[in-house]
Amino acid sequence: MLVEALGDEALAVREPGGTRFGERVREWVKDPSEEFGPHAEALLFAAARAELCRQVIRPALAEGRVVVSDRFLDSSLAYQGAARGLGVDEVAGINRWATEGLVPDLTVYLAIEPAAAFARAGQLDRFEDEGADLQERVRDAYEQLADDEPGRVRRVEADRPAGAVHAEVLALVEAARAAVPAR
Amino acid sequence: MLVEALGDEALAVREPGGTRFGERVREWVKDPSEEFGPHAEALLFAAARAELCRQVIRPALAEGRVVVSDRFLDSSLAYQGAARGLGVDEVAGINRWATEGLVPDLTVYLAIEPAAAFARAGQLDRFEDEGADLQERVRDAYEQLADDEPGRVRRVEADRPAGAVHAEVLALVEAARAAVPAR
Repeated sequence: MLVEALGDEALAVREPGGTRFGERVREWVKDPSEEFGPHAEALLFAAARAELCRQVIRPALAEGRVVVSDRFLDSSLAYQGAARGLGVDEVAGINRWATEGLVPDLTVYLAIEPAAAFARAGQLDRFEDEGADLQERVRDAYEQLADDEPGRVRRVEADRPAGAVHAEVLALVEAARAAVPAR
Repeated sequence: MLVEALGDEALAVREPGGTRFGERVREWVKDPSEEFGPHAEALLFAAARAELCRQVIRPALAEGRVVVSDRFLDSSLAYQGAARGLGVDEVAGINRWATEGLVPDLTVYLAIEPAAAFARAGQLDRFEDEGADLQERVRDAYEQLADDEPGRVRRVEADRPAGAVHAEVLALVEAARAAVPAR
């Protein structure tokens, strides 16, 4: 695990989740029997993110810890902003408000063709169940984010053995950690 | 009931609620055992509002119906924007995005002193349980909204017999309905 390689001061969280509130959102948005529009979906993700920042990430950063999140802001920009057509700037604005301005120092984008990702996945959740079309729009959106912010969003080729991906991600995180001033 | 007095084409909804999504939000935000920050709270209300507009209010307006909602946008401005200190403009911006620009033609503010309202209430929900201090800030916020938009937000003195309040609200709604152009 990446967070173990980073040492005791690293903290792993996931989105949506990481708090009681966020896990409740997670269960909700992934439920294939639920049906709701893109605005409600984006707002639920932002709400979960607000709680994760308030309850977990900000206190951890204040203690000097490194926080590694499985998905964060950029996932909302790709899924809701770009792939669902809500607008990247609009979704970014709501999330900046939700996180009170907290933005990741580094986002690692694990690039893989949707078909290869599906072949790896087990049971499909509500997002995966929407099929290859959504996943291709999401992939294009991540590519665009990596092009727009090449310093902060780093692309890692993920259709390789886990060890090689792990090593590259770890090197990127260590470099980012060295570059970030103490908060 | 107001909506009955308005005739068959009127539709009554409540917030949060009115959709499966919104009723789930309602249960959540009113649960006294839940604890979450003001940003997450505001985003949940906005998500429920987005779904109510998408699934219920816009289709009803498109059919020429009058929609009466027990709470809407202005409640979020008063509770989350003003009383919780998030900022009225910020909360308004998020909600304009959530409702895709839908704003009530008329908001009726039922003005009553918090102490008198508490005397009427039965079991307290999560908001009421926060006590008189929050309720007084909310009251002040509604007064401000009515001062800022005297045409759209109308103040009705509610510490009177129900029949008198009903008659005044009905007259305001009928006047607003006559003034609204067909959509």
